[in-house]
Amino acid sequence: MALKYYHAEPLANSLKSMVPLKEKGLAYESIYVDLHKFEQHQPWFTAINPEGQVPVLDHDGTIITHTTVINEYLEDAFPDAQPADAPLRPRDPVGAARMRYWNKFIDEHVMNYVSMHGWHRMVGVIARNIASGDFEKLLESIPLPDQRKKWATARSGFSEADLANATAKIEYALDKVEKQLGETKWLAGDTYTLADINFYSHCGAMVERMFPEMEVARRAPRLCEWRDRVAARPAVAEALKSEDRTAPGLRVWSGEVR
Amino acid sequence: MALKYYHAEPLANSLKSMVPLKEKGLAYESIYVDLHKFEQHQPWFTAINPEGQVPVLDHDGTIITHTTVINEYLEDAFPDAQPADAPLRPRDPVGAARMRYWNKFIDEHVMNYVSMHGWHRMVGVIARNIASGDFEKLLESIPLPDQRKKWATARSGFSEADLANATAKIEYALDKVEKQLGETKWLAGDTYTLADINFYSHCGAMVERMFPEMEVARRAPRLCEWRDRVAARPAVAEALKSEDRTAPGLRVWSGEVR
Repeated sequence: MALKYYHAEPLANSLKSMVPLKEKGLAYESIYVDLHKFEQHQPWFTAINPEGQVPVLDHDGTIITHTTVINEYLEDAFPDAQPADAPLRPRDPVGAARMRYWNKFIDEHVMNYVSMHGWHRMVGVIARNIASGDFEKLLESIPLPDQRKKWATARSGFSEADLANATAKIEYALDKVEKQLGETKWLAGDTYTLADINFYSHCGAMVERMFPEMEVARRAPRLCEWRDRVAARPAVAEALKSEDRTAPGLRVWSGEVR
Repeated sequence: MALKYYHAEPLANSLKSMVPLKEKGLAYESIYVDLHKFEQHQPWFTAINPEGQVPVLDHDGTIITHTTVINEYLEDAFPDAQPADAPLRPRDPVGAARMRYWNKFIDEHVMNYVSMHGWHRMVGVIARNIASGDFEKLLESIPLPDQRKKWATARSGFSEADLANATAKIEYALDKVEKQLGETKWLAGDTYTLADINFYSHCGAMVERMFPEMEVARRAPRLCEWRDRVAARPAVAEALKSEDRTAPGLRVWSGEVR
């Protein structure tokens, strides 16, 4: 049995499937894909994932993409490899449904909105530093039309209306999570699940540093306490230490710049 | 064991979880929610689903919402109730991952775009026929901010740019599905799964009638042949016959008007 995990910096989607691999104690080969060099659009990589996106799981030659799908796959393929406290996907149908409710909410109503602000601040700078002819060539190398559009928009700048809408979506999510954590210890119930890993990777880990104006500590104290509980898990702490080649001046997700 | 299914007309999300109930041969109480009377926003219904949306599954008092979550729940809770040909969710991890890849694509890149055209043509007419003060009251009764926004936009009209983007997304999906059906008999492989039910409910069933200008029969002949195979399944045929109170003149989804 051989697992390979192709990923970028330990944030967002790349973090989201790395944490379960480590929580489950699965041995895997880590393959860093350098997004700063656009390796994800290069032929060697699109031969592995035609959509040209990280992360990718290769399990004995079978390719699985999209982090929510990868994480469910790891549960199906390795049901007994679990952290000591509880399985990452609850074994009872209702618990699994609660987990999937949150995964769907995060995938559809959180991920893209935090991402838009990150792209606006970081990828926009990168995109505007590419010479015009080179930028057209870059766009041509991107397989997914939506990603081509996102790069083009990053260069010209996201509209104020789109950024304001993204901010409203993030604030809605903060309030929703804060309310849930008043009722249950973790997002989907009494145990830590893939839903916690999802929200942490796409929002919880960086929201306070990225959006100081939201006053997250005041607005969502339970979320902050939950975030610290997630970050203290050895698997998460280890994942966060993995390779990060982003220039420190551009690390908007990690909150070092705005 | 008692199952109740709260649903509207047999199209889109209401159809999507009704078909698995019937494919699995599960006895359930059907509860029609009249969207034309905005029953989904009324207190008796938001007491059941605070998000004010159909469909809803009630299993012995446990409420499950969101069709992809409901359909996975039915697989977890009733793993042995399956159609004769194959389980709706493949039992091998790779097959389940293929199914989830397609479910995710349909949920995130198809559903809302067909829906936007349907809302533009049908809900727009309904919304514009509501007197101004009554419309504000209607908006106030809608729990989810995104749904409030969708209703307000339906009344004022979706922008040409948004509609054109939605059309492009649907055309991309048609080509992607057509390509897949050149490789496998069903969307996720050799067997009919929840992914087929998902695409059929949100797009496949009505795309040719809703968008004659796309020339679906010419552009996607395999998709048409697949659509007819899905429609011929007794469970699907039975679901399609369930209650439909939409005024015939407004049945844009069923293609009777444009």
